Amino acid sequence: MTKYVLAPDSFKESMTAKEVCQAMTRGILKADPTAEITAVPMADGGEGTVDSLVDATHGQKISATVMGPLGKQVTAEYGILGDGETAVIEMAKASGLEIVPVSQRNPLITTTYGTGELIKDALDHGANKIIVGLGGSSTNDGGAGMAQALGAHLLTKDGQEVALGGGGLKDLIKITTTDLDQRLANTKIILASDVTNPLTGPEGASHVFGKQKGATPEMIEELDQNLHHYAAVIRRDLHRDVEQQAGAGAAGGLGAGLMAFTNYEMHKGIEIAIQVTNLEEKIKAADIVFTGEGGTDFQTKFGKTPFGVAQLGQKYHKPVISLAGYLGEGIDTLYDCGFTAIFGILPGACDLQTALKQGAKNVEHTIENIVKLIKVKG
Amino acid sequence: MTKYVLAPDSFKESMTAKEVCQAMTRGILKADPTAEITAVPMADGGEGTVDSLVDATHGQKISATVMGPLGKQVTAEYGILGDGETAVIEMAKASGLEIVPVSQRNPLITTTYGTGELIKDALDHGANKIIVGLGGSSTNDGGAGMAQALGAHLLTKDGQEVALGGGGLKDLIKITTTDLDQRLANTKIILASDVTNPLTGPEGASHVFGKQKGATPEMIEELDQNLHHYAAVIRRDLHRDVEQQAGAGAAGGLGAGLMAFTNYEMHKGIEIAIQVTNLEEKIKAADIVFTGEGGTDFQTKFGKTPFGVAQLGQKYHKPVISLAGYLGEGIDTLYDCGFTAIFGILPGACDLQTALKQGAKNVEHTIENIVKLIKVKG
Repeated sequence: MTKYVLAPDSFKESMTAKEVCQAMTRGILKADPTAEITAVPMADGGEGTVDSLVDATHGQKISATVMGPLGKQVTAEYGILGDGETAVIEMAKASGLEIVPVSQRNPLITTTYGTGELIKDALDHGANKIIVGLGGSSTNDGGAGMAQALGAHLLTKDGQEVALGGGGLKDLIKITTTDLDQRLANTKIILASDVTNPLTGPEGASHVFGKQKGATPEMIEELDQNLHHYAAVIRRDLHRDVEQQAGAGAAGGLGAGLMAFTNYEMHKGIEIAIQVTNLEEKIKAADIVFTGEGGTDFQTKFGKTPFGVAQLGQKYHKPVISLAGYLGEGIDTLYDCGFTAIFGILPGACDLQTALKQGAKNVEHTIENIVKLIKVKG
Repeated sequence: MTKYVLAPDSFKESMTAKEVCQAMTRGILKADPTAEITAVPMADGGEGTVDSLVDATHGQKISATVMGPLGKQVTAEYGILGDGETAVIEMAKASGLEIVPVSQRNPLITTTYGTGELIKDALDHGANKIIVGLGGSSTNDGGAGMAQALGAHLLTKDGQEVALGGGGLKDLIKITTTDLDQRLANTKIILASDVTNPLTGPEGASHVFGKQKGATPEMIEELDQNLHHYAAVIRRDLHRDVEQQAGAGAAGGLGAGLMAFTNYEMHKGIEIAIQVTNLEEKIKAADIVFTGEGGTDFQTKFGKTPFGVAQLGQKYHKPVISLAGYLGEGIDTLYDCGFTAIFGILPGACDLQTALKQGAKNVEHTIENIVKLIKVKG
């Protein structure tokens, strides 16, 4: 009886990681009806992390209405994992770029306030450990809005709260944490990020990520100066020096904000997912490991899910076979990193929409054939 | 050291079978540098048969200028196999539908005369065995033109040769073979065809294949009656009854013509290719067999190359892995017929032109990954 572990990421715009696992399971069972299959929907801290970790741990999803990036209310989902104590939040659900129309993208005003409200909601649900995925932000506010939502006061010289958004920070003269949610003191915040940029400077949040969020060159300068000023006030009032910390620049400086206001640890997204799902033990007991993602190319090496899975496979000398809807350039180097083989799933020439729509069927068919091949040799 | 046999068909509009073998070889060697590879370009009697059998036997190609389907000269290639005695002709090269513009397709006038000239040219080159691939014809003349090119007289009541094309046969009153090329008596003609239709009637050449060659319903009736008349004259003058023979209706009745005028055998195209290439012995000695074709679907079972290869693999209990640029409906049933696994080769969504252009690269990459997988398990 062959033991299979399925540890794919989502196939973006096509399937959640759980749906990939289901398609893989159908395909495997067609070729190997006695297969023993362990499905572990994975994620790398980016889009799909809530779904995958909730699915992998049999947790639950919670819906909350919070402030969106532009001040209007949005409905955002986050997860409570199967242990009942760990929450998982994607900052992009409340404060992400994808929920801001292109014409309204302006990091001077977009805020992480809603992400703070999600953290608060998770605390209300009893979480004592909160994973925050830092990908896909629309903001450049250093996490100031997040801190305000949790009770911190970021004050102007008139004693008013600074305006929301990266633009308001220039008026900041004082931070107080007297009213900061006290539960944060006993809560571990896990920052999930593959970004190691500092808060400010040429490698900082504004200069590296500002443009894609809608900032002009002049705005980028202003945003960078504001964050520099913000970091100075944090240093003085909170006695934490976050400005040059690796990862402080993630999610428009939300990294820095969480470092300044919470009891935090920072890890690569895939490492968190591996730990939460107990993937290492599962791979140790496997005969064959399948992983996959929507597209595989040279970037897969930089912390994407299949790479993390392949590394574990290599550690325990397990074959790791990866599937992708799209195989790009530079994948040859992956074979040295634990990937046994990498297969595309498409049955023929077709447009992207068709490919995305038929993803599950294509995964099922491809994996069926791979397992048929394995069984002949096994 | 693993022994691989490569026995693909051509990938239509993308690669010859030899080019597929070359791409497969590159991919295998990347994953298994000590591989022992036997490349056997295959064909099923249709397009690409000359190329494949010449390549597989290290024969040579010969170019001849002959009469095209509409009476104009065309340049057509045929092959002399490595044994120096066997010729291989695709009737479509001289008399095929693809060389007739759509607006000029008219089986009342298209003729197999050029195919007869190719046979003659092969005899001039010393062939004593001639394989004739019967696919892709533009004609419905019962092979009358072919016979005339080889010296038979098909006469009208005025003692003139009947007009070329399926329309001329209505004036046929007598056939004489006094001037028929005498070498044909000592030459074996091998008809390569997967078609088992009789010459005439509802399952005959005109009714089943006439429309795709440009015949109107009225023309189909006329063509069918002409072939019926032609068969009667053959019966009377040549003492051969070809009208209801299986395969007589192949290539617009060229099957019947070759049955009437030559010393023939008829076989499925793939069987001929298997025999010519000595594929069975090679598969017997193989560890793993690769095959493939441009598109695989339910029709693959009806005599296509990968099916023949898979059947041989099944006979000798060898894994047969098939690749295709396109995987269509109904391939599930192939797994019971000797196919171990069937893989598409595309790396991502793309248009057909791109897929065709990148065929070799995609075959190479896919097979590399398959072999990596096999080596891990092996």
